[in-house]
Amino acid sequence: MQKTFVPLTLGSLALVVALVSSSAIPPKVRAGLSEEQENDQHPRLLPSRDFVALDEELETRFWHDKAQTILADKLATHEKLNENRAKNVIMFLGDGMSVHTVAATRAFLGDSNKQVYFEKFPYLGLSKTYAVDERTPDSATTATAYLSGVKANYGTIGVNAQVERADCVRGADASTHTQSIGQWAQEAGKWAGLVTTARVTHASPAGVYAHTAERNWEHDGQITDYGCSTEVNTDIARQLVEWNVGRDLRVIMGGGRAYFRDQLMHDEEGNWGLRNDGRDLIKDWQEDKANRGAKGNYVWSLKGLKETDLNQTDYLLGLFDASHLPYHGDRQRSHLEYAEPSLSEMTESAIKLLSRNDQGYFLFVESGRIDMAHHATLAHKALEDTAEFAAAVKLARDLTNEDDTLIVVTSDHSHTMSINGYPSRRQNIFSLAPNQADDELPFTILSYANGPGSGANTYSADNGRLDLSHVDTTAADFRFQATVPLSSETHGAEDVGVFASGPFEHLFTGNYEQSSIPAMMAYAANMGPFSEDKLKE
Amino acid sequence: MQKTFVPLTLGSLALVVALVSSSAIPPKVRAGLSEEQENDQHPRLLPSRDFVALDEELETRFWHDKAQTILADKLATHEKLNENRAKNVIMFLGDGMSVHTVAATRAFLGDSNKQVYFEKFPYLGLSKTYAVDERTPDSATTATAYLSGVKANYGTIGVNAQVERADCVRGADASTHTQSIGQWAQEAGKWAGLVTTARVTHASPAGVYAHTAERNWEHDGQITDYGCSTEVNTDIARQLVEWNVGRDLRVIMGGGRAYFRDQLMHDEEGNWGLRNDGRDLIKDWQEDKANRGAKGNYVWSLKGLKETDLNQTDYLLGLFDASHLPYHGDRQRSHLEYAEPSLSEMTESAIKLLSRNDQGYFLFVESGRIDMAHHATLAHKALEDTAEFAAAVKLARDLTNEDDTLIVVTSDHSHTMSINGYPSRRQNIFSLAPNQADDELPFTILSYANGPGSGANTYSADNGRLDLSHVDTTAADFRFQATVPLSSETHGAEDVGVFASGPFEHLFTGNYEQSSIPAMMAYAANMGPFSEDKLKE
Repeated sequence: MQKTFVPLTLGSLALVVALVSSSAIPPKVRAGLSEEQENDQHPRLLPSRDFVALDEELETRFWHDKAQTILADKLATHEKLNENRAKNVIMFLGDGMSVHTVAATRAFLGDSNKQVYFEKFPYLGLSKTYAVDERTPDSATTATAYLSGVKANYGTIGVNAQVERADCVRGADASTHTQSIGQWAQEAGKWAGLVTTARVTHASPAGVYAHTAERNWEHDGQITDYGCSTEVNTDIARQLVEWNVGRDLRVIMGGGRAYFRDQLMHDEEGNWGLRNDGRDLIKDWQEDKANRGAKGNYVWSLKGLKETDLNQTDYLLGLFDASHLPYHGDRQRSHLEYAEPSLSEMTESAIKLLSRNDQGYFLFVESGRIDMAHHATLAHKALEDTAEFAAAVKLARDLTNEDDTLIVVTSDHSHTMSINGYPSRRQNIFSLAPNQADDELPFTILSYANGPGSGANTYSADNGRLDLSHVDTTAADFRFQATVPLSSETHGAEDVGVFASGPFEHLFTGNYEQSSIPAMMAYAANMGPFSEDKLKE
Repeated sequence: MQKTFVPLTLGSLALVVALVSSSAIPPKVRAGLSEEQENDQHPRLLPSRDFVALDEELETRFWHDKAQTILADKLATHEKLNENRAKNVIMFLGDGMSVHTVAATRAFLGDSNKQVYFEKFPYLGLSKTYAVDERTPDSATTATAYLSGVKANYGTIGVNAQVERADCVRGADASTHTQSIGQWAQEAGKWAGLVTTARVTHASPAGVYAHTAERNWEHDGQITDYGCSTEVNTDIARQLVEWNVGRDLRVIMGGGRAYFRDQLMHDEEGNWGLRNDGRDLIKDWQEDKANRGAKGNYVWSLKGLKETDLNQTDYLLGLFDASHLPYHGDRQRSHLEYAEPSLSEMTESAIKLLSRNDQGYFLFVESGRIDMAHHATLAHKALEDTAEFAAAVKLARDLTNEDDTLIVVTSDHSHTMSINGYPSRRQNIFSLAPNQADDELPFTILSYANGPGSGANTYSADNGRLDLSHVDTTAADFRFQATVPLSSETHGAEDVGVFASGPFEHLFTGNYEQSSIPAMMAYAANMGPFSEDKLKE
């Protein structure tokens, strides 16, 4: 006899009415899902295609031993809090590195039971990323939050929310300018530096030294494009070379040479500049250091970086590409590793140079292209860059001491990638989910809420979903599917992780405003407006 | 003059070649995105339709004061760790409550700067939810992890990974059975109880007391449906009433009456039972308590619960619906609040009864239908249930003392909902993103990677996306769009939050296996295999 629950079939109802009290109350219809619907919610999966369980994981003992180890680690961590003052602070920023991105990278590294290096840090928090005007922020307004402790408007950098995006006048008013932790470090006698795989004038690194109403004003021509005047507004590249914080940075490494030179000048690799003002800011940077009696080294290649004697370098400017540096995976696949340094290589050089200051340093390290890969729904490249980012964090932790160096790893905002379907445990994260969709077509484990994947790669000519059965979805340049067609995938609005190791690491747990992160870092290093003395005032 | 970067136009190339060195190196083409592409990644947004900035948020001072408050709170938290032993442990489980769900609920409660109550807890961690066989787990295998400290196979409850789903024989072998923290509490002289908005025999609450190879064996007929025998396997409802841990539970509240009575019996509201064995397990439960000389009260309505004298009740069985309890929002909209208790009301009664034991208690409270709403891409109902869940946590924290009661709030697994587009700060979270998609149709801020939303509600007859311009996407029963058509949306595979308050709250930060959560709770309460004495052995 078939069992039905709600609604009752007429047959069973008649039977039951005949058998029991004639005053039966009418059946309720809202009592839940049918059994069929319930099974649908938690489907009986096909046997996993490539799963072989590890023998040890079949044992209760294995998991209890593992839980005991985790517990013992945690008890040991809390036996004595690390309340040393941080001589050095290194902030690692995975641009667009959502909770999903980190979890998927774990799978990319081999298995769900892996940890991405910085996940091993003893303290973890979640940071709320919203801007003053927008629920979903961008890398500009978030840079102001996590570097200056101030939330502001989407698209602005180093200014408070009195400045609307692209407001030439208010953005030039110094009373709206915020101070970054880079400045606090310099004022405390520490050295400061930045490393990024994006242009050094891009939104995130610009948060260390720039103040602008518009993130797109990286060179002078972009200011006039917006109908603003270069008499009133200073482009980001010039601020880096001429304004106080930028000028005093001991390390500047990343991409973006074209933003430093006029469009009639070409660079060391044959790319033309973008500026309209006839200037060569790289030359200006070199002259400034010479005029100050300091040794300033400019390098434009990995070879140049390797040949630099960091013990004889007071200031280092490394611009390794005309625009952004390549994706880490592309760099490896095309052997570009011989041309540009990796994030790890830049991080190592930066730490070695900055460590020469007895009073310590603040270093900002950004993996800038996780974000760009997500915007293009290129999940494979996003995870490759995240893995390299984790390698750079490990290298930094290995090169420094937990007793005097605080490392904080976080992200500025999320993206819309999710990990869906019911893949088996050790299935390639870029492959197809084991079950087909209701349109009788397969779907990938990773996908996006919106983006370019929804166009050419998702829908076939007759507007159905593209059949991925014979597509190599594990290829590095595969664009993952998206619900909503957009030429560029958008950011996501949920919280991002904060991972901390070193002095006052324990401050970084809980759920808090992104803008409280620099306060906690500055307190740990006892500098700026959140130093112990200032707090007592 | 239009500025182009890469690729160079032929015209500008010719001009430049004429002007500069004739040995110009060929231009590189991988230097980055065009400016148009970059702007596309970080679009100039339309003015926000409904945004009015709070004056205070325009000031640098406001954010620095806020950061300082957060910092001071964190310093105070760490001045003295709460290392009391937990007399009581309350575990709150938001089924399917992803990081996105919590962040979206914050917006649903009014603004991105809000905190969902438990986000204020001082310590936060992220839990890795994978099963032994599947990267994306279900509520059954995760219940074994967070209640027994053992990871196992998808679809199984209270057994280790030696048992494959629906394996009648291995699942009945007691050597594969795990012990739950409910059992550890009972063995330590504490009382134990469970509260859920799902059926009390559903996967999550079953983790407290059941051992089964198949989550769907909630009544006897389901066992024979799978070709197994009720001689070998015992259904979950019977385990709750007859087996040791279930039989000793002091509080059992939720839905699922139909699973306790034969199909020829109807319940107090006219719904027919589902069992095939002629039994009325509710009567059996009552008789068992009477035989043991204890006062056992069975209630089936809010009225019955309110009339129960909890001071005169030794055991409480509340089954308020034939299947699951209604969604909290539906309950309010249809005035069902007069029929069934809310999660808060059940939680309050449970705490009041359990508090009578001098040796303390373990209470498991599940909001079971956040998950079900997500499966149906009913995001509105998922957030309403999350808000009520947070209210229940607040009530529990208010009714208890941080000195002796540990509260842990977490989720079993994620879902695929994301918060996308660039909505303004105070825009209704269920509404349309401000910008149109490339198909010139609007899209909602919330969407799913897969699910039923992709069918009738997403795609119109000609297979294009449905035009939502004139659809009330804020209606409670609106199904949000999804990329991949599936009759039921799938879970997500990324980490979920763990929020802790009370004794040994500090153990719960960091990133760890979901299966270490019961170890930390048991250590805090000094009971079971992770008590201080056991660890020393």
